[in-house]
Amino acid sequence: MAIPRSVEWKEDSIKILNQQLIPNSVEFLTLETIEDVWDAIKTLKVRGAPAIGIAAAFGLALAGSKFEGEDLQEFHTHIREKSLYLASSRPTAVNLTWALRRLQNKIENAASVNEAKTNLVHEAILISVEDENICYNIGQHALSLFNKNDSVMTICNAGSIATAYYGTALAPFHLAAEVDFPIHVFACETRPLLQGARLTTWELLQSGVNVTLITDSMAAHTMKTKKVDAVIVGADRISANGDTANKIGTYGLAILAKQHGIPFYVAAPLSTFDISLKNGDEIPIEERKEEEILKVGNEWVAPKNTSVYNPAFDVTPAELISGIITEQGIIHETEFDKIPDLFTTKSL
Amino acid sequence: MAIPRSVEWKEDSIKILNQQLIPNSVEFLTLETIEDVWDAIKTLKVRGAPAIGIAAAFGLALAGSKFEGEDLQEFHTHIREKSLYLASSRPTAVNLTWALRRLQNKIENAASVNEAKTNLVHEAILISVEDENICYNIGQHALSLFNKNDSVMTICNAGSIATAYYGTALAPFHLAAEVDFPIHVFACETRPLLQGARLTTWELLQSGVNVTLITDSMAAHTMKTKKVDAVIVGADRISANGDTANKIGTYGLAILAKQHGIPFYVAAPLSTFDISLKNGDEIPIEERKEEEILKVGNEWVAPKNTSVYNPAFDVTPAELISGIITEQGIIHETEFDKIPDLFTTKSL
Repeated sequence: MAIPRSVEWKEDSIKILNQQLIPNSVEFLTLETIEDVWDAIKTLKVRGAPAIGIAAAFGLALAGSKFEGEDLQEFHTHIREKSLYLASSRPTAVNLTWALRRLQNKIENAASVNEAKTNLVHEAILISVEDENICYNIGQHALSLFNKNDSVMTICNAGSIATAYYGTALAPFHLAAEVDFPIHVFACETRPLLQGARLTTWELLQSGVNVTLITDSMAAHTMKTKKVDAVIVGADRISANGDTANKIGTYGLAILAKQHGIPFYVAAPLSTFDISLKNGDEIPIEERKEEEILKVGNEWVAPKNTSVYNPAFDVTPAELISGIITEQGIIHETEFDKIPDLFTTKSL
Repeated sequence: MAIPRSVEWKEDSIKILNQQLIPNSVEFLTLETIEDVWDAIKTLKVRGAPAIGIAAAFGLALAGSKFEGEDLQEFHTHIREKSLYLASSRPTAVNLTWALRRLQNKIENAASVNEAKTNLVHEAILISVEDENICYNIGQHALSLFNKNDSVMTICNAGSIATAYYGTALAPFHLAAEVDFPIHVFACETRPLLQGARLTTWELLQSGVNVTLITDSMAAHTMKTKKVDAVIVGADRISANGDTANKIGTYGLAILAKQHGIPFYVAAPLSTFDISLKNGDEIPIEERKEEEILKVGNEWVAPKNTSVYNPAFDVTPAELISGIITEQGIIHETEFDKIPDLFTTKSL
């Protein structure tokens, strides 16, 4: 039983879990060139904002280490080009450009190509280690909210394979399994792309977590007829007032939890907050292509000319959230008005 | 543009729509023997409680018409045997045994084999015509609740192809389309078996209804961000207090509707009421096999050894229901305490 890791630095290559094939086969790929990394991000073999950022950072470090020559100016040009190339693999991924910029900043003052190469590798590994620590701390804080034999519901895959390790919403379950603290998880399958069915069940089974899969439409009945002690979800973006954008279906779950008197938690690193946004109305909601709903796998499940509405995310208003679990502690619902202050004082 | 019909009496055969192939191909089958009818019910080519009852009734009439000889006692034995055989195609379908019993009762006093044969055919056709009338009336009453350009959400397929014609929850949309009264429908895909995606979108497109498909997980966000004026659903069983068992996901929709101030209607014939049940707690909930969730089509979407909870129905408590639309009129939420009286006086 081991928590799966999706991206690993192997000095002259990067080892990644091919998430596209989960759960039907578990395949690790060895990425040896920056083109391999670009392709892995582009084709969603690596997914999850933090994991994408880490893969890109490792990719740029790899590109640096393969540079031949001693000309520092040429090296900088090389890195800038490779960075732009990697960023083009998924232009909307914020973590990707953030990680690449962080690496480039780190070599600005390097005195030699060799020092710059080393700096890139160190910084990339640091990004991964930092994310792992953040996730570990989120997991520990989240776990403090649960009791032995609790049943907790989640949606999508805010998991180890979407981050450096442990995940965010799934971190407490992995940590609980490590210390034989029994928690049962209800995983919502998460239509349309089924990340809950495909990824979360697989990931939790790897570390020995007791998980039961339901369709999203079964959440209400499950809350009413089974013991559900809490709901915990990840987040894509959190506005200054605590409104939280996350995978489509999250908002509905929050309403159902409220109706059944079940606490609803968001688990996310502080980097998820965008306090320039006053509230959730300012968060743009991406609409994705119709085929994601009209087809499952290769099979059409509705007439091809059917109109479809396919929002990728929804916004859960702060008043439905019992607490936001960050790496520095839990922001309880009574403290949401202090969220902007956290980003001035940088501590909870 | 025509409302599809799923079961039709053709004198020496029965014409059915093969619902298993919808929406990928539209195939009508000609059932010429009682074995064909048994198989069509068994393999879900015909589905929907009223449609199954009608198919079985036509099947028994067909078996009667093919009887050779003039011995009335032998005819009765023949019909009893064929009736038991047809009932075995789907042992839990209440409408199936109800229809078969109704046909058998009709020939008890027949004076000849010929008269009995005719009685069977007439009674089977009557069952179909009665159901069509019931659905038409439900549709008209339901339509009175909607305004031009309303957007109405539904789940599963309480449609024309599940009944003799028109359907229950879908009847008002077909009737509106016939008179160019514009109503827009949001169809929830209805996991796990996707009847909303596979059947409802197809059925509504046939009669020219403007329909948009969403996943079940998008209902809350759609209610919040789009114009949704009402929700209307079918019912499998309604208890004496108005609690309603229907396809899994219905209860969640009802909570979401309440939260967004959207009226929530149940459309069902009076035969759906079981006033021997005090409330919804007495309605048993069937759990179905794990593969319905673990697989979509032939593709596994979760690890094969994943635990699954797969309830087929849920119960929506009466307090979340704005009205129950029957063939005799609308029972408004303030009148639910009078439901038992309806079955004494037999009128609304």
